[in-house]
Amino acid sequence: MKTIVQDRVSTDRQLRDYETPRLLIDRSKMEQNIARMAARATALGVDLRPHMKTAKCVEVARLAADALAPRITVSTLKEADFFAQAGFRDILYAVGFAPNKAAHAARLLRSGVDLSLILDSIAAAKALAEAATLEAVVFPILIEIDTDGHRAGLKPQDSMIVELARVIDAAPGLSLRGVMTHAGESYHCDSLEAIADMAEIERSGAVTAAQRIRASGIDCHTVSVGSTPTAICARSLEGVTELRAGVHVFHDLVMAGLGVCAVDEIALSVLTTVIGHQADKGWVITDGGWMALAGDRGTASQPSDQGYGVVCTETGEVLRDVIVVSANQEHGIITSRPGTEPLDALSFPIGTRLRVLPNHACATAAQHDRYLVVGGDGTRVEAEWLRSNGW
Amino acid sequence: MKTIVQDRVSTDRQLRDYETPRLLIDRSKMEQNIARMAARATALGVDLRPHMKTAKCVEVARLAADALAPRITVSTLKEADFFAQAGFRDILYAVGFAPNKAAHAARLLRSGVDLSLILDSIAAAKALAEAATLEAVVFPILIEIDTDGHRAGLKPQDSMIVELARVIDAAPGLSLRGVMTHAGESYHCDSLEAIADMAEIERSGAVTAAQRIRASGIDCHTVSVGSTPTAICARSLEGVTELRAGVHVFHDLVMAGLGVCAVDEIALSVLTTVIGHQADKGWVITDGGWMALAGDRGTASQPSDQGYGVVCTETGEVLRDVIVVSANQEHGIITSRPGTEPLDALSFPIGTRLRVLPNHACATAAQHDRYLVVGGDGTRVEAEWLRSNGW
Repeated sequence: MKTIVQDRVSTDRQLRDYETPRLLIDRSKMEQNIARMAARATALGVDLRPHMKTAKCVEVARLAADALAPRITVSTLKEADFFAQAGFRDILYAVGFAPNKAAHAARLLRSGVDLSLILDSIAAAKALAEAATLEAVVFPILIEIDTDGHRAGLKPQDSMIVELARVIDAAPGLSLRGVMTHAGESYHCDSLEAIADMAEIERSGAVTAAQRIRASGIDCHTVSVGSTPTAICARSLEGVTELRAGVHVFHDLVMAGLGVCAVDEIALSVLTTVIGHQADKGWVITDGGWMALAGDRGTASQPSDQGYGVVCTETGEVLRDVIVVSANQEHGIITSRPGTEPLDALSFPIGTRLRVLPNHACATAAQHDRYLVVGGDGTRVEAEWLRSNGW
Repeated sequence: MKTIVQDRVSTDRQLRDYETPRLLIDRSKMEQNIARMAARATALGVDLRPHMKTAKCVEVARLAADALAPRITVSTLKEADFFAQAGFRDILYAVGFAPNKAAHAARLLRSGVDLSLILDSIAAAKALAEAATLEAVVFPILIEIDTDGHRAGLKPQDSMIVELARVIDAAPGLSLRGVMTHAGESYHCDSLEAIADMAEIERSGAVTAAQRIRASGIDCHTVSVGSTPTAICARSLEGVTELRAGVHVFHDLVMAGLGVCAVDEIALSVLTTVIGHQADKGWVITDGGWMALAGDRGTASQPSDQGYGVVCTETGEVLRDVIVVSANQEHGIITSRPGTEPLDALSFPIGTRLRVLPNHACATAAQHDRYLVVGGDGTRVEAEWLRSNGW
């Protein structure tokens, strides 16, 4: 599939032909990020199942997934529909399953999509087994394991895991495919060493759970783990079959703050325009507010608080000490990073275009319906790629 | 217009027929909120120009705007297009104008929309005057006044106001309509008294600016002020011609925290479904994460931090001490408010539907493409109303 990249709308436009704000992909940075993660998966001996919750874009998925066996992860059934329509057939829906979505999931299965679901309780398994009978389908299931106390899942040592595996194995409408876990707490580690330790906790917890199921005589093929930080830092993924990561395609300031990428490697930005100044305060006011940048302040708890984003020139040169310090719905206020030299606001005249690197790529991208894909010298828009948003 | 409410999609469905998450409007609460603001404008002797940046919905605009003279405010030109197509002809675009949007604004003017623009600098006025000549249109202009140091605008006493009024008055492609200001700092007041004081600062600053322009011999018809808090608390709007407010149609937890509405008056919520538990932690896990709720944590700086939102039953009964304490992209974690009794998580079985009241209605609504309008006993979906999002 990788060779048939169909740009949804091919363009021969320049950035300056667009009104702002607009969401940009730096194509060469994205391709490098994708290649790096593919190399990681190869080195670790696991399949890559990129999480499309970040990009939600068919063209990105075709580049990020394995060319010969394109498997992906999604965060909503609408994403599953979107990628299924584009030809993807091996999809993991990685959010605990709600009964009201059973008819929708069954439609996808009947259309030929191998859609796996996750759950972590006997109540959910029973509800889904009942729905499977009604819908006359067999739902492939992964049991969610909680390896970091972060969110959902059963602890690797919980006796409920084997009990749940038995319920799934016994239900005619369910088929146990394996286990999955997500070490979201890796976003709060304070060193690459700590992330590597978290990756080992993620790996060993998932493998332990799978071994306990196998020891009870039940097949458990898949051991799925991942987050971008643990994927990049893991020392070994022995016993794991597949790796999930999503934000790696773009990276963002939270990832840079963790040290898993450099600020220069961030492939996503929001193009904004200067609309005014409060020169005495050193403020440059732009049309890029929290609606375009997203309200995520994920770097606020990191050593370097990046406000609502780091500012770059129109062509992408990073202005390291210029950040969006405050944002209203359609206004961004740009000034110098606290503790650095005051900004000469008027050196950014009205009409100047500036890019803003996002704190959290998943949140920022979701504020937009499409990407402008920028190549070459940073001024040419090579394509517009559509996103799927909502539910 | 108010009498011709066309539901975009009339339905006879129940809430239980929808997958979650979904965005809900409680119709009767919304109608009460709208009636209250209309009564405020009448009592204060000003025209109401509701800000559609919150609802971005034609059906809401038809209810919120004056029936005989439907004037609205918008935050993007895409919103202006959306409402123009629905028949609205008197639109204020209340974000400082960027030169790259001139051709778009000119198209709207030529299509018969009375589109007013705002600016606060001679540089912007000159750029816009040049664009007006190219496009052969006359742009109606309001000068933005900064009455609270919050964002953009010229201070009421700034000599630049009269100078700018002269530049606009002299430019063949520009027509000075008046002045406008927005006291966004009212969101940070700590009492209704303080908001009323801020409303007076907003009023007197705008009126002063208008009087200074008039004293220089230039017409200045419009004096436009507003934010929901100042609109609700203002003691007098003498000298003001029109009032802008937007979030009042729904209200939200930030408004409730300020005291300008009660939690029971919030008309917007997100319907979610329980997908799991961590019973030992008192956690109920739902499919309503920050993607559905928005990442806005505006109540974090208020006396009562509401997390990512206050939880209600499926039909809307407020569970005052149950909040969304944490959120991932498609997961919400619900538990008791800190300092209150631990939550019996399993009393909310898998499949239970819960509504979540938003911190910030503008941000939450923008995560969705439509509203389900709920009436009667809180279970019937009377209509689906579409939103305009993006740029």
